[in-house]
Amino acid sequence: MNLNIDKKEFLKGLSLMQSVAGRKTTLPILNHILLEWDKHSLFLTGTDLETGIREELTASSEQSGKASVSSKKLYEIVRELPEETIKIQKKENHWITIQCGKSTFNLAGMDPEEFPSLPTYQEKNFSKLSLLLLKEMVEKTVYAASNEESRYHLNGVLFVQMKQGGKDLLRVVATDGHRLSMVEGESPSIRGIEKGVILPKKGIMELRKMMGDKDDQDEIEIYFNTTHGFFKMGKSLMVIRLIEGEFPEYEPVIPKTNDKRLILEKEKIFSCLKRVSTMTTEKGEGVKLSIQKNLLEVTSYHQEYGDAREEVEILYNETPFQIGFNVRYLMEALHSMDTQEVIMELKDEGSPGIIKPSTLTTIANQLCIIMPMRI
Amino acid sequence: MNLNIDKKEFLKGLSLMQSVAGRKTTLPILNHILLEWDKHSLFLTGTDLETGIREELTASSEQSGKASVSSKKLYEIVRELPEETIKIQKKENHWITIQCGKSTFNLAGMDPEEFPSLPTYQEKNFSKLSLLLLKEMVEKTVYAASNEESRYHLNGVLFVQMKQGGKDLLRVVATDGHRLSMVEGESPSIRGIEKGVILPKKGIMELRKMMGDKDDQDEIEIYFNTTHGFFKMGKSLMVIRLIEGEFPEYEPVIPKTNDKRLILEKEKIFSCLKRVSTMTTEKGEGVKLSIQKNLLEVTSYHQEYGDAREEVEILYNETPFQIGFNVRYLMEALHSMDTQEVIMELKDEGSPGIIKPSTLTTIANQLCIIMPMRI
Repeated sequence: MNLNIDKKEFLKGLSLMQSVAGRKTTLPILNHILLEWDKHSLFLTGTDLETGIREELTASSEQSGKASVSSKKLYEIVRELPEETIKIQKKENHWITIQCGKSTFNLAGMDPEEFPSLPTYQEKNFSKLSLLLLKEMVEKTVYAASNEESRYHLNGVLFVQMKQGGKDLLRVVATDGHRLSMVEGESPSIRGIEKGVILPKKGIMELRKMMGDKDDQDEIEIYFNTTHGFFKMGKSLMVIRLIEGEFPEYEPVIPKTNDKRLILEKEKIFSCLKRVSTMTTEKGEGVKLSIQKNLLEVTSYHQEYGDAREEVEILYNETPFQIGFNVRYLMEALHSMDTQEVIMELKDEGSPGIIKPSTLTTIANQLCIIMPMRI
Repeated sequence: MNLNIDKKEFLKGLSLMQSVAGRKTTLPILNHILLEWDKHSLFLTGTDLETGIREELTASSEQSGKASVSSKKLYEIVRELPEETIKIQKKENHWITIQCGKSTFNLAGMDPEEFPSLPTYQEKNFSKLSLLLLKEMVEKTVYAASNEESRYHLNGVLFVQMKQGGKDLLRVVATDGHRLSMVEGESPSIRGIEKGVILPKKGIMELRKMMGDKDDQDEIEIYFNTTHGFFKMGKSLMVIRLIEGEFPEYEPVIPKTNDKRLILEKEKIFSCLKRVSTMTTEKGEGVKLSIQKNLLEVTSYHQEYGDAREEVEILYNETPFQIGFNVRYLMEALHSMDTQEVIMELKDEGSPGIIKPSTLTTIANQLCIIMPMRI
C-alpha cells in the first residue's frame, strides 16, 4: 500500500520540521518526525518537547498508516529527489521504502507509537487574529528578551490581555533586565491570557519563522491553556510550552517623568550609531550622547583602536546634558520602529531613557526603555 | 596634509586585504595593512607572510606618506562611511585621523617601517597569460589538493612547464594521495617553472578569489623565482611563497591500461550520486558502482539509516563488473568538467579509475584519477 505525495509538497512540509526536530538529542526519537497518513492527507509532527509543529500535507493513500524516521535524513533524501511523485511504503521493523524516479531508499525507523504526542487542543477555544498584527508585535519585542540560559525568567516574552476603553488590548512585553520593549494592539478576546503567560524566546522565534512563511493577509488562530500556547495558521499548527514563574514587575520601570524630549530622524541616527559603534569595546558597547540645542554629538572610545565622533542634527530645545547607552540596544530599538522620526524621552544621565515611534500604524502603542551606562 | 580618496575605491581595496591581513596573529603587525601614498595613488599592502597582496588605488595627496593600521578596524569603519570623499591625515605616534561627512575617527597605528616588505620583483621577468585560462586550470585542480596540515607536501599545487610538439604547455597538478587532478593548457614560456614549483593551496585559493574579481578578458602577468610566485592583474599584485620539497611522483600513477570505457551524462550521474550519497557513512563515503551493458547501478549503505539504490543509463559494451569509490571524490571530479558527457576508464575493482571530459575547450587536456575503495 503506497502513500503518494508530490515532491514539492513533501519538501515544504519537511523543511518546516527541521528547526524543532533533532534540536534536543537527549531522546533519540526527538531526532525523528512522525508521519501519519490517511486517504487524502499526510500529517507531519516534529517536537523538541518545548515547541511542537504539526503540518497537514496533500497526499493520497488507500490505507492509513504511521511511521517515525529521522527528520534530517528524510529531508536530505527528499531534497535531492526529482520533481516527481514520491511513493512511500511501510516495511517490517518500522522501516520505510521511499521510491521516486529510478531511486529506491530503505530508511530505518522507530516504533511510531513511541513518538511523544503533542498536547491536545480544542477547536472551540481558538480566537482569530490578524497574522500581520501578531507578527509585528512579536518582531518589535522578541529581540529584547534575554539569550542567557541562566536568566530563565527573562528568556521569555509576556503575552497579556487587558480591557481599555471597552476594547480588548493585547500587550506583548520582553526584557533582559537592561532594556525592555512593549507593544499593544487591539485584538479580539484571547482565551487564557487575562493574567498573562510567558512564551519562551526559542518558541517565539519558531513562531515568527512560521508566520514569515505565511501570507500577511492570513489570520492566525490562537489560545492558551495553563501549560501551552496553541497557534494555528492554515494547515500548520504550532504548540509552545509556557514558561512557569513570574514575569518581572515591569510596569514600575516605565519612566513617568522624562521631560527632555528629542526628535530624531531614524535612518540618520541609526547609520551614525553604526559608524560610531566601530570604536566601542566588544564588552560594554557604550556610546556617549552629548545633547545640545538641536545637535547631538555621539562619541565612543576603544582602548586599543582609538575613538570616534559624529554630529547629527536633531530637534531639541532644552538644557544640554550627556548620557551613555549601550549602542547595540539603541540600534535594536531604532530598528524595531517603522516611522521616519523617532522620539527619545530622557530625564538625566542616571535614569532610563524611552524611545518610541513618532506616530503609530498597525499597532496601538510601542515603547522601548533602555537603562543608561556610565561612560 | 590630507590624503583624499573616494569611499568606494577605498572599500574595494580594503576588502581585498581582509583575507590575508589578520589571518596569522603571531605577529601583531600582520593584523595591519600598510598604507603608502603619493600624489595620485594609495598603495595598500597586506600579508600573512605566505601570501602578500599589494593594491594600487586612485587617490590624491600633496605629499607622500605611510601608515600601518588594523586592517579589520579600518575596513569596518570605511564600510559604514557615507559615499563621499574620505580624508586621511597622519598624526603623532603613528595614529591616523579619518574624516568623512560629519564623522571623525582617530585610529591607532604602528610604525609603518616595521611592516614586513613583500619580496621584490622585476618587471622584465613577467610573461602574459590569459586570465581565463589560468582561472580554469586552477579551478579544475585545486580541489584535489589536501587540506590536512600534516601532509604538507600534498597541500600544494604543482605548476610545471614543458615543450610538446614545439609548443609550450603549462601543466597544473594537485593530489591528496587518494585522487589526482591534472590539466594542461598552451601558454607562453613562463620564467622559473621548467622544473616545477609547488604553490600552497591557501595561496592558490586567494589567487583564485582575486582572479574571480577581475574581467575574464583580462590578462595575468606571472613569473617565479626560487622562493616565490608573482602574479600581476591590472593594479593588483599577489606574491605567494612556494612550498619547498618534492611534489609526489605522480606520472607513474596515471593508469595506462584501463580498457573498460564508460560514457556518462554528467548532470544525470552527478544528481544520481548526490541522492545515493545521502546514505553513505560520513567517514568512508563509499558507493558501489555495478556496471552492466549500458546500465550503471549505484548503491550505498549506512549502518544506522539504511540503504539507497539508483540506476542510470550509460554507454558500456564490455563485461559487467563492480567497483567502489568515495562518492565525494567522484562528484568533485565530475563538477570540475565542463562537458555534457564524461568518460570513465576503468580496469578492475582494485585499480584506479580515470575520469575525463568527452571533448576539450580552453584547456588542452584534463584528467582526474581516483583510487578505488573496497565496499
